[in-house]
Amino acid sequence: MLRLTEVEHVQRRGAEMLQHAGLVITPEERARIEVADFGLGDLERTGLQLLTYVNTDRYCAKELVLFPGQTCPEHRHPPVDADPGKMETFRCRWGTVRLYVEGPSTVSVTHPPTGSEQCYTVFHELVLSPGEQFTIPPNTRHWFQGGAEGAVVSEFSSTSRDEFDVFTNPRIVRALLVE
Amino acid sequence: MLRLTEVEHVQRRGAEMLQHAGLVITPEERARIEVADFGLGDLERTGLQLLTYVNTDRYCAKELVLFPGQTCPEHRHPPVDADPGKMETFRCRWGTVRLYVEGPSTVSVTHPPTGSEQCYTVFHELVLSPGEQFTIPPNTRHWFQGGAEGAVVSEFSSTSRDEFDVFTNPRIVRALLVE
Repeated sequence: MLRLTEVEHVQRRGAEMLQHAGLVITPEERARIEVADFGLGDLERTGLQLLTYVNTDRYCAKELVLFPGQTCPEHRHPPVDADPGKMETFRCRWGTVRLYVEGPSTVSVTHPPTGSEQCYTVFHELVLSPGEQFTIPPNTRHWFQGGAEGAVVSEFSSTSRDEFDVFTNPRIVRALLVE
Repeated sequence: MLRLTEVEHVQRRGAEMLQHAGLVITPEERARIEVADFGLGDLERTGLQLLTYVNTDRYCAKELVLFPGQTCPEHRHPPVDADPGKMETFRCRWGTVRLYVEGPSTVSVTHPPTGSEQCYTVFHELVLSPGEQFTIPPNTRHWFQGGAEGAVVSEFSSTSRDEFDVFTNPRIVRALLVE
């Protein structure tokens, strides 16, 4: 578990990257940037910073911040009741993000977090630079990683129900440290 | 009907405002910025520039550009089949936008386009600056207007079906000049 001072430090760093990307947020939003270490206690390598703008029963919009080389671990959004599973569009706003989805492997080398390689199984790579986007179908395994400078990514999606996400790594708990 | 050269000029101006707001778009996106004059032939006063990033059967995301004082005329998004009507969240990214929705009138003076005042009937005002947002419920009349410098506004919403929009002004045709 991250200590509060660590969370605040990570929030500040995330907010600075949003600002650097030209995205304005309010002080209230800055204070509720979500810091997810997925229960692994290794945030710099496996983690994600999120700011949810809106999440209704119809749609959701967030900003995602990835530090350099930081990885959001492989997962999928399964069907829940009448919902076929979350569909999401990633649009890179700043930096570079490497996105891996199901499909023919397109690269010979990837760099999942050392020691967890067996929990990364999809290697169809899309490298998104600012202005580029990709839509991930429901119930599709995916993971993504910040480039050399990290990344700021807008996520447009159907309703977000993070608690139902299925991670390939059985050790992962979708711990919401700050929400 | 706007001539092609006029549309290209307006697209360029819209693209410059997006750039000024720090939002990166691709050349392909720049070329398909939608210029809507709503069939009134008075774009500077009644019009809107739009760039749709994604519009699926589940959600939609766009950027809206308003020139200084430009007004998107009053309309609502009615129910269509099983859809209760489009719900949308406006998030101001740059400039200022004055948004008017149904509810108690909060201002004594508004400035709808001269000559069309009778087509503006809701006066509950929200003034959004960068980082501020508001969610408009389905089937709710609303109109909005760029401030002194204009505005760039991100729209997150349920599926967009512009052809069903109901405008208060019966002269309005939701003409898509460039899509």
